[in-house]
Amino acid sequence: MGRWEPDAKGRLERAALELYAERGFDDTTVAEIAERAGVTERTFFRHFADKREVLFRGDELALLVVDALKSTPADLSPLDAVALALESTASFFDDRRPHSKKRQSVIDANPALRERELIKLASMAESVAHALRDRGVSDPAAGLSAEAGIAVFKVAFERWLDDRAERSIAVHIREALAELKSVTS
Amino acid sequence: MGRWEPDAKGRLERAALELYAERGFDDTTVAEIAERAGVTERTFFRHFADKREVLFRGDELALLVVDALKSTPADLSPLDAVALALESTASFFDDRRPHSKKRQSVIDANPALRERELIKLASMAESVAHALRDRGVSDPAAGLSAEAGIAVFKVAFERWLDDRAERSIAVHIREALAELKSVTS
Repeated sequence: MGRWEPDAKGRLERAALELYAERGFDDTTVAEIAERAGVTERTFFRHFADKREVLFRGDELALLVVDALKSTPADLSPLDAVALALESTASFFDDRRPHSKKRQSVIDANPALRERELIKLASMAESVAHALRDRGVSDPAAGLSAEAGIAVFKVAFERWLDDRAERSIAVHIREALAELKSVTS
Repeated sequence: MGRWEPDAKGRLERAALELYAERGFDDTTVAEIAERAGVTERTFFRHFADKREVLFRGDELALLVVDALKSTPADLSPLDAVALALESTASFFDDRRPHSKKRQSVIDANPALRERELIKLASMAESVAHALRDRGVSDPAAGLSAEAGIAVFKVAFERWLDDRAERSIAVHIREALAELKSVTS
């Protein structure tokens, strides 16, 4: 494989997911992932810090949400703004439901991956809280809206994965938000 | 040290926390913790699975909350029941504020400990959701009430640690719950 490596990152992600599903996360090496993707190990480490990170795309999702949060209307309540920002991830998720299902079953089977997933969600909550404070929301409202928003996202994501009707994750986020409002009222 | 080891568990916890604070978590060995506590390494491993677990007391807190949840009035809303169960941990926390502050600064300084802390909270949310389903609460209300309750607890716990007036964690839980209700209304 020469220097010309179109979509090396995407190929590494697909190769890793295939291998993790076939032989388990623990029994897959970076060398094997690189080989299946047709790139060098060096290329793997240019894109990902380690074998776990290949499933999480760094902090791409958090950046997407924080970015979307910046363009939500200023008159929305903090929690509604967070929910709207989360809805904007629909284009990220809806096209990749089969990939997401396979990825989730790999994660659920491995405690180290479950840990990494929780870290990503917690760090997303922190980024969202930070972005809310930048909008002028004070604490504890900022922290609570961020944590509650991530709680809505967790529940919505699980339901989206299992939804036989294949409705958009945005629909599930709106439903989970309505349910949260109902349990807190 | 013979077989007579009164409160070996408590002494191990205090010794570990002292050593982690003095020289850092990574640079402390189980042998050193056992030595300072005046017990054998074997005794350490009879009480704790590893060096991280000594800071978390297994799932004691989750068991306490789930147990309290069982005796909350049946007519409370799921989230109010979770908040009341969380308030019952006040006796666990309020006496050990200095210990909790020291423990938290050790955890915050170490990514591996932060991960373990998030795992404990996520697993507490799962136990609480399970207990709510046992009460007859259906999903997504059960999952959302559990996640929202843990979000309330996280925010309340941070504010309790920093509270110069040293008010009970129960007060902070009630305040955080009221704030959650306000951001969702």
